[in-house]
Amino acid sequence: MKPLRVGMLGLGTVGAGVINLLARNGAEIARRAGRAIDIMHVSARDLSKPRGCALDGLTVSAHAEAVIDDPEVEIVVELIGGIEPARELVLRAIERRKHVVTANKALIALHGNAIFAAAREHGVVVAFEAAVAGGIPIIKAIREGLAGNRIEWLAGIINGTSNYILTEMRERGASFGDALAAAQRLGYAEADPGFDVGGIDAAHKLTILGAIAFGKPLRFAGVYTEGIAAIEPDDVRYAEQLGYRIKHLGIARRRDLGVELRVHPTLIPERSLIASVHGAMNAVLVHGDAVGPSLYYGAGAGAEPTASAVVADLVDVVRAHTTDPDNRVPHLAFQPDALSQMPVLPISEAHTAYYLRMLADDRPGVLAEVATVLGESGISLQAVVQPEPPHGAARANLVFLSYPVREAQMDAALARIRELDTVSGPVTRIRVEHLDVA
Amino acid sequence: MKPLRVGMLGLGTVGAGVINLLARNGAEIARRAGRAIDIMHVSARDLSKPRGCALDGLTVSAHAEAVIDDPEVEIVVELIGGIEPARELVLRAIERRKHVVTANKALIALHGNAIFAAAREHGVVVAFEAAVAGGIPIIKAIREGLAGNRIEWLAGIINGTSNYILTEMRERGASFGDALAAAQRLGYAEADPGFDVGGIDAAHKLTILGAIAFGKPLRFAGVYTEGIAAIEPDDVRYAEQLGYRIKHLGIARRRDLGVELRVHPTLIPERSLIASVHGAMNAVLVHGDAVGPSLYYGAGAGAEPTASAVVADLVDVVRAHTTDPDNRVPHLAFQPDALSQMPVLPISEAHTAYYLRMLADDRPGVLAEVATVLGESGISLQAVVQPEPPHGAARANLVFLSYPVREAQMDAALARIRELDTVSGPVTRIRVEHLDVA
Repeated sequence: MKPLRVGMLGLGTVGAGVINLLARNGAEIARRAGRAIDIMHVSARDLSKPRGCALDGLTVSAHAEAVIDDPEVEIVVELIGGIEPARELVLRAIERRKHVVTANKALIALHGNAIFAAAREHGVVVAFEAAVAGGIPIIKAIREGLAGNRIEWLAGIINGTSNYILTEMRERGASFGDALAAAQRLGYAEADPGFDVGGIDAAHKLTILGAIAFGKPLRFAGVYTEGIAAIEPDDVRYAEQLGYRIKHLGIARRRDLGVELRVHPTLIPERSLIASVHGAMNAVLVHGDAVGPSLYYGAGAGAEPTASAVVADLVDVVRAHTTDPDNRVPHLAFQPDALSQMPVLPISEAHTAYYLRMLADDRPGVLAEVATVLGESGISLQAVVQPEPPHGAARANLVFLSYPVREAQMDAALARIRELDTVSGPVTRIRVEHLDVA
Repeated sequence: MKPLRVGMLGLGTVGAGVINLLARNGAEIARRAGRAIDIMHVSARDLSKPRGCALDGLTVSAHAEAVIDDPEVEIVVELIGGIEPARELVLRAIERRKHVVTANKALIALHGNAIFAAAREHGVVVAFEAAVAGGIPIIKAIREGLAGNRIEWLAGIINGTSNYILTEMRERGASFGDALAAAQRLGYAEADPGFDVGGIDAAHKLTILGAIAFGKPLRFAGVYTEGIAAIEPDDVRYAEQLGYRIKHLGIARRRDLGVELRVHPTLIPERSLIASVHGAMNAVLVHGDAVGPSLYYGAGAGAEPTASAVVADLVDVVRAHTTDPDNRVPHLAFQPDALSQMPVLPISEAHTAYYLRMLADDRPGVLAEVATVLGESGISLQAVVQPEPPHGAARANLVFLSYPVREAQMDAALARIRELDTVSGPVTRIRVEHLDVA
């Protein structure tokens, strides 16, 4: 069969990774796909910049439109990132009836519904495996591999920078600031790390995972998002003493009246497999009603892992090319006319256990005072720890681990605790999930 | 679209699981697939046996042929297991141009090449996700999700019974015999556990994984197979002291002159993620040149997890139905005319590190004597441990951990060690893999 002719928008790290990967493994990939995959036309704004890949034989254009409009190009790979002009360019490619492969999680999370509708209208596929968890084929696993399941919940370490920072804090006792600086030195975190450590990047990915797990339209605005900047070394240490590790998770859970979609630091049992996902690696734990717990682990970022997902999507598109569009895997896993309108529940409706840490006067009766407020609020305690305060300190940390309650109930209890004279400073509250995994 | 009409051969645990799963999740699955999946005709040898699933509305036949030959049946699910009559029945279905879904690892490992050739000839798909690692979509991950990669190696816990036994030995200090008895009580192991603990079942699965990872024909006879019956509690304990755990792994590795395919107990670093896969769970670690290490974890057996894989295959077949056969995912991941003929290397060519344990006279100089033989054989040592012998014992365990060498070299050294007067009884030799995973 003749080669698949691909145009690529953007020639940054991932773009160079795709070109290098196809150059290195082209013969092996053709043995799989039954035809060669030929990147023939790429766009890059600054043509003078060195790219870390060979461009011989490729047409290079300064304008993305030239790639999209090239009549030879059958598939467009979008690696520009961000919303505009990526959104306009993807829609332009779709209108020209070209399949699209993208690694752009923000674009899919915010504009995927409109993009997929346009793709259906024009009979093309938009593939986005690279948008979530880099090289891990998690979109494929959920949309296809678990197609027999009713997905009950999923929980993912889907931002490598945050996981690297939390790993450094645990393994080296580093502060958040020092661990972030280390991540920046290693190139994991951007100079402005807000998207990573603030949870926005994870929320983009969770938006996508939640939609394909439950078959509902994408709605980024529904995701509750909390970053890891407030986690202190004390919390990491106390969590460990209680048998837990702190991970930054994206959690999607099906409930009777809707779905929970939330990104936040989470205490999870140290024995659960996902607690052993270290450094910048990603992993997604998916619980289906038939398969039970299943986990998918790998590199969530980087040129080659992301290129791995982009090339897998290209091979998939080769295969979908001659398929009757009605028989293709639907973008959001479920047929577009069968998407569910179940609401995203507000965070106040979330149901989890909690870890609480507060600074309180170091004298008898204070622990009981706080425990009484919690008890009066209907919150049962699983553990209470009062670590020895530093010598001579007038105040000591108090740590509580609750049983699961509705978040609104915990909020009410915390409001009362903050008013206690014996408690001073902020109360740290971290959600706890047991993930039902041995 | 009209429902997909499915016939099913065999109505054991997994068959009942498929019927129950489709009954429970039928509406959700139809929302995904775009059409209902309708099991309409099943065969079971003994029609009087209770089945644990509702059969109303289904035609039940005593003969599998009646299901296959039913003109209404479009897809045949083979859940009989074993070689004959399963092989003949699958070929019969293919000849009648019916797609086949099977969970039969022995059949695919031993007769897959002929079955796939027949399927190509007749333009149908044979899907076998359920044959390896139960509910984990590992076939899909390797064949499709990692299609951009040159797979370098994979290592899997692909027999839940063996993993359960090794977990019991480590966590409870149980002997192999006691742990096996516990597995039998829980229904994990068959009354004749040879296939599981002898490694045959894992070798069937590794045959399949190796073929799709490297794009080579299936050849079960090429797999080196060693079970776990010789593992002693001492080995589990010493491994732990050295920072390792013993797992029963199926390993496929690409080498310059061929591939290694081997199933055996293996020491792996306790920090590697797969070392934390406990009980009857399965996991496969796949290392691709672009994605790096990736891991897939879940239940490897049981009615519902296996049914999960069968139903996913049914949905895939729905989608492949209207595809031009040349654009379908090839059975062995690579186009049939592009399979590689690289040989399977004999185990003597394997290259691994080794754990050695032997009973030797408890006097000065014995350790040095053994170490000298190893040194003279070109084998470097990473660690030597001489645990304190029981009080009054004349002989003590000696434990060595080597750096990687060619197996033939280790065999030669072991022959010399066995001749030493100071060493008595068998020398336990367990291969060690570091898996390159932090």
